Amino acid sequence: MLKNSEKTMDKIVALCKGRGFVYPGSEIYGGLSNTWDYGPLGVEFKNNVKKAWWQKFVQESRYNVGLDAAILMNPQAWVASGHVGGFSDPLMDCKECKTRHRADQLIEDQTGENPAGWSDQQMMDFIRDKGVTCPNCGKTNFTEIRKFNLMFKTYQGVTEDAKNEIYLRPETAQGIFVNFSNIQRTTRKKLPFGVCQIGKSFRNEITPGNFTFRTREFEQMEMEFFCKPGTDLEWFSYWKDTCKNWLLSLGIKEENIKLRDHEQEELSHYSNATTDIEFMFPFGWGELWGIADRTDFDLKQHITHSTKGLDYFDPETNERYVPYVVEPSLGADRVALAFLCEAYDEEQLDEKDTRVVLRLHPALAPFKACVLPLSKKLSEQAQEVYDKLSKYFRVDYDEAGSIGKRYRRQDEIGTPFCLTYDFDSVEDGCVTVRDRDTMEQERVKIDELVHYISKRLKF
Amino acid sequence: MLKNSEKTMDKIVALCKGRGFVYPGSEIYGGLSNTWDYGPLGVEFKNNVKKAWWQKFVQESRYNVGLDAAILMNPQAWVASGHVGGFSDPLMDCKECKTRHRADQLIEDQTGENPAGWSDQQMMDFIRDKGVTCPNCGKTNFTEIRKFNLMFKTYQGVTEDAKNEIYLRPETAQGIFVNFSNIQRTTRKKLPFGVCQIGKSFRNEITPGNFTFRTREFEQMEMEFFCKPGTDLEWFSYWKDTCKNWLLSLGIKEENIKLRDHEQEELSHYSNATTDIEFMFPFGWGELWGIADRTDFDLKQHITHSTKGLDYFDPETNERYVPYVVEPSLGADRVALAFLCEAYDEEQLDEKDTRVVLRLHPALAPFKACVLPLSKKLSEQAQEVYDKLSKYFRVDYDEAGSIGKRYRRQDEIGTPFCLTYDFDSVEDGCVTVRDRDTMEQERVKIDELVHYISKRLKF
Repeated sequence: MLKNSEKTMDKIVALCKGRGFVYPGSEIYGGLSNTWDYGPLGVEFKNNVKKAWWQKFVQESRYNVGLDAAILMNPQAWVASGHVGGFSDPLMDCKECKTRHRADQLIEDQTGENPAGWSDQQMMDFIRDKGVTCPNCGKTNFTEIRKFNLMFKTYQGVTEDAKNEIYLRPETAQGIFVNFSNIQRTTRKKLPFGVCQIGKSFRNEITPGNFTFRTREFEQMEMEFFCKPGTDLEWFSYWKDTCKNWLLSLGIKEENIKLRDHEQEELSHYSNATTDIEFMFPFGWGELWGIADRTDFDLKQHITHSTKGLDYFDPETNERYVPYVVEPSLGADRVALAFLCEAYDEEQLDEKDTRVVLRLHPALAPFKACVLPLSKKLSEQAQEVYDKLSKYFRVDYDEAGSIGKRYRRQDEIGTPFCLTYDFDSVEDGCVTVRDRDTMEQERVKIDELVHYISKRLKF
Repeated sequence: MLKNSEKTMDKIVALCKGRGFVYPGSEIYGGLSNTWDYGPLGVEFKNNVKKAWWQKFVQESRYNVGLDAAILMNPQAWVASGHVGGFSDPLMDCKECKTRHRADQLIEDQTGENPAGWSDQQMMDFIRDKGVTCPNCGKTNFTEIRKFNLMFKTYQGVTEDAKNEIYLRPETAQGIFVNFSNIQRTTRKKLPFGVCQIGKSFRNEITPGNFTFRTREFEQMEMEFFCKPGTDLEWFSYWKDTCKNWLLSLGIKEENIKLRDHEQEELSHYSNATTDIEFMFPFGWGELWGIADRTDFDLKQHITHSTKGLDYFDPETNERYVPYVVEPSLGADRVALAFLCEAYDEEQLDEKDTRVVLRLHPALAPFKACVLPLSKKLSEQAQEVYDKLSKYFRVDYDEAGSIGKRYRRQDEIGTPFCLTYDFDSVEDGCVTVRDRDTMEQERVKIDELVHYISKRLKF
């Protein structure tokens, strides 16, 4: 098995581009700074990741329901959430070479200090005192910090004036908060219950990068779990475990993640607890999941700004109160990239033969199986097997080249089972199933393939 | 069964808001002009619509693959596609009362003429000659037509200048065209093959309306089917049939759709044929699906603007050519609304009893089943049935109120099967399955429920 140190982003990006997982966005026009398009394999794979999340957090949960709120929201929602006032990066220009930088990143990159929670003045003082330099020219001669709001702004309606100014949402969470009462009323749910949402968000990042890890347009999978105040830390711990187990159940290795609890001084003023789940990417540790006990901060902000009562009447205690919230917020693109990095492997078969194999959990694999006729004379019958299976799963079909070559192509894209239709198949109604990981083969009845594959998709 | 004329938008909207299919977006802040959020039932339902499309057009197709391109694209793509130059509404202001109107809509609404393809001058002349009036004040005294581009514009990066100007995509189709070579190369597909994509698009419409039918933010399900020039009209007809059959197979009645072929003068200059599939909404006929033979127009535009060779080498004829394209473009929100309108029914059971029932195809229903314990004493065992089924389907659980009331609640949200767990269930391992449409009941073994339900989800 490949060591972590041998998995490089170059290898992963090359596989993604070469096999149709991910292409550079608008590539024929020279791209658009760090946008990416999910190709035929990527879209199946990412859909599987989203499906796996929805399955565990909505479908199989006794507590949770889903939501799909609009990307465009009334701007007042972003005033209430604090994004209009405070969602900004601290930028400095280098006076020597005129390049622009994020002050907090300069500090973290050059000294290892985490300036979360520092004031602008603290950062500027630190940079001057420690001689933090411009990564472009090496000098220490910066402008003052200027705040740059990260929300994309646009105009709705015919005229571009302030009253028509709206934003692309920078997170999906607020769509859940503003709908709290609508959801509680229409589902008649009692506390505790959670609301889960998958959707695109947009942040005008100054320095996107690391492939699909940090992009301006990205997809989130967020849950807001509403509970009675006082029970929040218990639920925080419950969801932290659930999140971690979800990753492990889909193939992430325990040694490749770490749970980083935020220190008291790093916590937002309203948060009772926050933990990041980080993954060991080829470029270093990166945050996948932020799990935060946000107390009643968000609902109270919306109560203040909307003057609507977003509280809850507890039929058990006859009390009325504003629920507390535990929020596990996961990046869909990030966790997909983590699954890819975890799964990537090169296996030395003999002295001069290495195979690339993507050891994805079958539930996540773009194709669940590939049907291979041994000879083109068997195409028609093999296509029928394809048609049959494709009613249940996304499957591939390949009749080009030797069986060995076709196996390798499927290994590289993570297809767990190759089904070879040969001349015996006509007689015995079986195909040879070859396992991606063990490369072992067994004979399975065509009529039992749906069951055979379904069983192996569980996680 | 309810007649079409008795199905009103008011009833449908009230059901949607009351039961958690669709809420007004940002409602606590007074909304944001015609944005809508899909609630707990709406998100399941709309996901099922998307899944049903993906299943027939990607998963079960021998030809097609999927894609998920970014919403933000290099602006040159929109120059090539013609959206920067030509994607605009012809607006006029009423000089009398200062209201703003779309010239083409005034003409269509007041005279029934379809001004598609008319020049601005033709529209202005027509309005003056026929005395088309301002719908607000009744006068005919308009300004000249001014073009208003429908693309939402934003800025990427720190400065708001022209070089950072980008657009929210007004259609998903161009994401497919710019990736044609990437997809063909990495999938090694031969012509004909199609590329399918589901995703959000944005159009700054002047007059959104009719609930979720016309919104500024909307979701599309588009396919671009690439084929050899000369075979395009055959494929056009093939996909037209496939689209129609998809609607019928999921419960749309033949008499509620019509296929409207565009007349020669209505066709875009590059199109060989175009047909709209329209549905009879409570507010009238509305377009669901536009199916167009776009020839090689789009690929050639991108070849010209990108100077990249988006052609295809045909290994059978050893020719190199630019493929022709057939594009069936479907609005996800629109077709979801059509399914809801089609399914909505009020059934007179006896003189003083009417039930509202949403006769959705089981594949589209938000919940496939609801588990009902006959008594709260049976909660624990009923919950186990819920847990078991929820590994396979999205199911509901309800223990509040009489069984009759619970049936009615599930009828209204389209749940095809109510599963009552009673005191006999403990003994015989069965539940009573009550059918939404026939209201008939039968006893089914708990162990057979997954199979029982699965069978009925096929379409």
